[in-house]
Amino acid sequence: MAYTPLIAALVEALRGLPGVGPKSAQRMAYHMLERDRHGAQALAGALQAAIDGVGRCRLCRDFSEGETCPLCADTRRDTTQLCVVESPSDVQALEQATGYRGLYFVLMGHLSPIDGIGPSDIGLDHLGERLAQGEVQELILATNPTIEGEATAHYIADMARDLPIQLSRLAHGVPVGGELEYVDGGTLAHAFNGRRKV
Amino acid sequence: MAYTPLIAALVEALRGLPGVGPKSAQRMAYHMLERDRHGAQALAGALQAAIDGVGRCRLCRDFSEGETCPLCADTRRDTTQLCVVESPSDVQALEQATGYRGLYFVLMGHLSPIDGIGPSDIGLDHLGERLAQGEVQELILATNPTIEGEATAHYIADMARDLPIQLSRLAHGVPVGGELEYVDGGTLAHAFNGRRKV
Repeated sequence: MAYTPLIAALVEALRGLPGVGPKSAQRMAYHMLERDRHGAQALAGALQAAIDGVGRCRLCRDFSEGETCPLCADTRRDTTQLCVVESPSDVQALEQATGYRGLYFVLMGHLSPIDGIGPSDIGLDHLGERLAQGEVQELILATNPTIEGEATAHYIADMARDLPIQLSRLAHGVPVGGELEYVDGGTLAHAFNGRRKV
Repeated sequence: MAYTPLIAALVEALRGLPGVGPKSAQRMAYHMLERDRHGAQALAGALQAAIDGVGRCRLCRDFSEGETCPLCADTRRDTTQLCVVESPSDVQALEQATGYRGLYFVLMGHLSPIDGIGPSDIGLDHLGERLAQGEVQELILATNPTIEGEATAHYIADMARDLPIQLSRLAHGVPVGGELEYVDGGTLAHAFNGRRKV
């Protein structure tokens, strides 16, 4: 039996969520219609409100409901440090795990010539202007340790090379709590070559 | 760093979906805001349309956009067979897996005195009236093989006991393709006691 049209449309729309296949989408649709119409209403409202109200911060490009995000507007942050990340979830992860007190710059992606994503698509023109203003003294390249992330970090490093800015990159190595036998070869080679005196 | 209010509300609403924890909810919210605002808009619209447009079938209590669902309205179905299931997804599963051509009755739950769910909450008064009309000749009790499902099936069996209706229950046994060593004891005992001559 096919779904009725409205349920079919709902299941299809739910499948657009990351990690949701046809079975989960059906389960979600049925759950909401059967037991949680109040929650469904709340979700529809929250989605619409977020679509309408969430834009980008003028300074760091992170999600923001105003012109600047709370983090950029926080005068207690150190404006001489700027950490470049690929996405808003990276900001969340670093804020939760580290004691970093500087600011961020969110690319919302990475360079990917094959997909037609060039420097201006990830805001590197804005980043260049910001670095040229001279306030930033340390630029932390925290793009993902993937081929595209590394290429993006290299590109940004080149941009900043002639400016009086200290560049840094997150350390590569074996994960804390990991076992050597399960660490991939590339990471192990990095960790070995970057070994430290104790 | 806390989420901005609209993102926090969206993440919270997404967590109401079955199987979605805080990490997945964040991933979904960010994915939609970052890369798929069109999909987010479609989801908000589909949710609202389903909330407004999806009701219950007057006859079988399954989800329906009209007064009766397409299945009950289908004159080619055998009206002498009625299969009682707990939820709309059970109807989907049986329709996909079996060649059943009769009708369904969807309880939208099961008897659960501890949660205050009695016979009329799962439509057993309607079911009683329907059985009394005399058209149904076989009543298939396809509630879940759980304690509550079994109790519900027993209750319905008692209701129909004095009527000229053939009662049946789905067969218990080892799953097709399963291995005996991994089948739970209760199922294995059922399968052994219900063994058939070949």
